[in-house]
Amino acid sequence: MHDRTHPAPDITEADRIDRLRLIRSDNVGPRTFNALIAHFGNARAALEHLPELARRGGASRSGRICSEEQARAEIAAGQKIGVTLTAPDEAAYPPRLATLEDAPPLLGIRGVREVMLRPIIAIVGSRNASGAGLKFAGQLARDLGDAGFIVISGLARGIDQAAHRATIESGTVAVLAGGHDKIYPPEHGDLLAALLDHGGAISEMPLGHVPRAHDFPRRNRLISGASLGVVVIEAAHRSGSLITARMAAEQGREVFAVPGSPLDPRAAGTNDLIKQGAALVTEASDVINAIQPILARPVVLEAREDDDAPLDFEIDPNVRGRIVALLGPSPISLDDLIRMSGLSPALVRTVLLELELAGRLERHGGGLVTLI
Amino acid sequence: MHDRTHPAPDITEADRIDRLRLIRSDNVGPRTFNALIAHFGNARAALEHLPELARRGGASRSGRICSEEQARAEIAAGQKIGVTLTAPDEAAYPPRLATLEDAPPLLGIRGVREVMLRPIIAIVGSRNASGAGLKFAGQLARDLGDAGFIVISGLARGIDQAAHRATIESGTVAVLAGGHDKIYPPEHGDLLAALLDHGGAISEMPLGHVPRAHDFPRRNRLISGASLGVVVIEAAHRSGSLITARMAAEQGREVFAVPGSPLDPRAAGTNDLIKQGAALVTEASDVINAIQPILARPVVLEAREDDDAPLDFEIDPNVRGRIVALLGPSPISLDDLIRMSGLSPALVRTVLLELELAGRLERHGGGLVTLI
Repeated sequence: MHDRTHPAPDITEADRIDRLRLIRSDNVGPRTFNALIAHFGNARAALEHLPELARRGGASRSGRICSEEQARAEIAAGQKIGVTLTAPDEAAYPPRLATLEDAPPLLGIRGVREVMLRPIIAIVGSRNASGAGLKFAGQLARDLGDAGFIVISGLARGIDQAAHRATIESGTVAVLAGGHDKIYPPEHGDLLAALLDHGGAISEMPLGHVPRAHDFPRRNRLISGASLGVVVIEAAHRSGSLITARMAAEQGREVFAVPGSPLDPRAAGTNDLIKQGAALVTEASDVINAIQPILARPVVLEAREDDDAPLDFEIDPNVRGRIVALLGPSPISLDDLIRMSGLSPALVRTVLLELELAGRLERHGGGLVTLI
Repeated sequence: MHDRTHPAPDITEADRIDRLRLIRSDNVGPRTFNALIAHFGNARAALEHLPELARRGGASRSGRICSEEQARAEIAAGQKIGVTLTAPDEAAYPPRLATLEDAPPLLGIRGVREVMLRPIIAIVGSRNASGAGLKFAGQLARDLGDAGFIVISGLARGIDQAAHRATIESGTVAVLAGGHDKIYPPEHGDLLAALLDHGGAISEMPLGHVPRAHDFPRRNRLISGASLGVVVIEAAHRSGSLITARMAAEQGREVFAVPGSPLDPRAAGTNDLIKQGAALVTEASDVINAIQPILARPVVLEAREDDDAPLDFEIDPNVRGRIVALLGPSPISLDDLIRMSGLSPALVRTVLLELELAGRLERHGGGLVTLI
């Protein structure tokens, strides 16, 4: 059972180095990376324009641009521990993850690369899960593994590790919030080593990156993005697993939730998800039956609304000022900026890109931006 | 807060006695009662035709017809313990119950008659409920009572009694499977006595009737029928509460279910109900918010499909034979009988009525019948 519909060619090593330099340069995230590539044609050309764009965005000091040496060093260090940096247009990249508009431009893949191409189901939940929750997570993961699915999760304590442990033999993927050499929590190093025999680990972060609080929600979009659907087992109100569920819904992935007693606070989040329309799960067939029709359809790129408008660097300085004046610490959407400024989407997008490269713009969920 | 939209006049005592005689006569159930009244105009005329109809249906021996003396005695005995026999077209009859096509032609009502006219929510569930289930049932019932709803249930052990006990002050209705003087389980006699101060008890059975196994599912249609919606708390697979939920759905009532862990067999039935479309409940507002729009609409009679065709007693003996030949121990529907016999709905219904009065026909759920 494979989840990729067509093979993809590898990119050249020179292109890989250029892409790595671009995504590792200051203020370049996946969306900006994609916008730059779309405009300049390739990473090399985009790199050459970075300083100018940042200056036009009002950078007080020049942002750091990743050097060729640094990129080569990261690739070499990764190879030593079996990490290969893979682009969305390459064969080994998880195909559903590649469809995200904020897919990592280079994903560090470790372990059995073939599992990335199999149908993937995410199982996530509380770190401080109950005994029943842990037991059910293991049981569900095992049944999904037996049915040919790869189980993906976040290597966390609680539900995550139970799902991974139950699928060490059938194949499981750990998504890391830090670099491949900075495992969190540290005591799960053994679990990671064990699952690499028949499974894998992925990260978008450079080696040496110690995960911080805000890296976990960012990482969660990869868990949901790589999967056909996300099963949430035991989640309290406002827990990280609910962020993964929300991202899954935004990405068009199926959302499943395991119910629990109204008197159990660890079931409050999952019961709420079901009230909001998530499918109730008590056994693997609930997931498999819902997923089968999706699996039968080809993997398609999601609509990239933001990319509809090309960039336009022919900007009148007054125009830049008008957009900056509309920005502030309160989040505002691209659509509102276009409407309120009366300017073209291309101009607004370009100014936002410049501001971002200058380190003056922050992007939030739902396409909202704030000026820093 | 009242749930009746228009007042109804009382019936005459003579008519009440005739109606009681008709429904207490052998082989006359609520549907047959209604068909006979629709055809003959009143209970007195129907009673006069009973022996002839039973004979035409092939009764081997004459069925017992309730005498006027027996009817008067039942009414008098009921009055001694505060039970009044009330017809669907009278003001004190629970208005939603009156809309059922198999509404009891005379309902024995005890306690505060006014509560029958308030908006009613059913709470049902396992007899061997868990501590958490009992606690939640009490909490939910109390919150619904505080919000102005009357809680109805079956006076059983477990969830039922927890729901009643929590609403003794706000008002609760017990629906009995036996006569008003044959309380089951016997140890809930005190609970019944306590709830009669601000609530009531209803039964369609004659005094002295000791409830048997098949009386409980029959009784359950009154619990769901009198209510705006049914909340199921803790129900295993194939439990009686699920019968109540199915009846509620067939009657067009809202079905609510309280979730539980997939590892808890007492939640298997409720989780299944949610999978099938029941609304998930973790707090009273889940019920109230769903019920409010229904409460705002007037109470209307449900479509009485079976009553569309009138009776037709001009039957050729050959016709009767053709229908009997199609009947057997395997359940068959009225629609199939009409189609396979090529006869009019009126003729088929009339022959079935005769067979029923002769004690030769059994009616099952979903409009199916078998020959005894």
